[in-house]
Amino acid sequence: MLTRHEVLAARERTVSVLADAGIVLTDEERTAIEVADFGLSRLEEIGLEVVVYVNTDRVCAKELILFPRQTCPEHRHPAHGDLSGKEETFRCRRGVVYLYTEGEPTPSPACRAPGDDPSAFTVWHEIVLRPGDQHTIAPNTLHWFQAGDEGAVVSEFSTTSTDELDVFTDPRIGRATVVRDE
Amino acid sequence: MLTRHEVLAARERTVSVLADAGIVLTDEERTAIEVADFGLSRLEEIGLEVVVYVNTDRVCAKELILFPRQTCPEHRHPAHGDLSGKEETFRCRRGVVYLYTEGEPTPSPACRAPGDDPSAFTVWHEIVLRPGDQHTIAPNTLHWFQAGDEGAVVSEFSTTSTDELDVFTDPRIGRATVVRDE
Repeated sequence: MLTRHEVLAARERTVSVLADAGIVLTDEERTAIEVADFGLSRLEEIGLEVVVYVNTDRVCAKELILFPRQTCPEHRHPAHGDLSGKEETFRCRRGVVYLYTEGEPTPSPACRAPGDDPSAFTVWHEIVLRPGDQHTIAPNTLHWFQAGDEGAVVSEFSTTSTDELDVFTDPRIGRATVVRDE
Repeated sequence: MLTRHEVLAARERTVSVLADAGIVLTDEERTAIEVADFGLSRLEEIGLEVVVYVNTDRVCAKELILFPRQTCPEHRHPAHGDLSGKEETFRCRRGVVYLYTEGEPTPSPACRAPGDDPSAFTVWHEIVLRPGDQHTIAPNTLHWFQAGDEGAVVSEFSTTSTDELDVFTDPRIGRATVVRDE
């Protein structure tokens, strides 16, 4: 849960990060920036800021903004009925992002599990993305990611986003951010 | 047909435009920039520079670079067998791009048909895209676009690209650029 003030402050910060990266938003996009705390109420540590450019029944493109050391928690995108699981490509634009996926665990990873439950982070194969680097994540593959000390801007190119169908490792997580008035 | 020198010069110019827009490429991407003259050998007038970030069997993302007043000629993306036609979203990042699609012709369009055959440009519904503006083009819809006087950088988010299956209005057009040694 976030207060309205926290949401507005995070949006303002996101606009500033994107402006520094030379990314232009419309007024409408600025006021629609999604601030996700994943229901854990520790936005600075576990959270994500999202600009959705387009999300049709075939294609989705977003800008993901992570504040310094902010983490998007572990999840996967399974198939649902006729809908194949989401395939997504992350392209780093600014900063550094540490992406963790299924595969051989990296011996000395650059990140530690954030929050109060390290068991909610089970995959430790590290992929380091610097500006210009990208990685494609196959459907239904567990992954999570954390920004470096300077934060990060990451472009996401994917099939249709159905965030509400994502499966998070931490059972406490709710994808929709609940906002209270103060 | 382009000379190798023309291709290399256009690539260098594209790298510079992207750098000014704050868009970071890897060395590999820089040397793979596609310079398309559509077989018409008048690149400055009818041509397109392309960076393909990703093109899987579900999703494609590119950066399109247009030099001042450069035009991508009229074409459409039809279905082929089981493959639905390509759906694409153009998002303007820098400069101005004038996009022409099917629909009510705009009375005083900002652009004139380039090249030597105006009959190769048949749709005149004008959509003006400035930085932050975007438009989604449905499959099999005729469209062409021209940059304003400062050139343009346009992000394209789409379903799979199969450029060789595009249908151009000008029957002389070949999508693959032929490069001769000098």
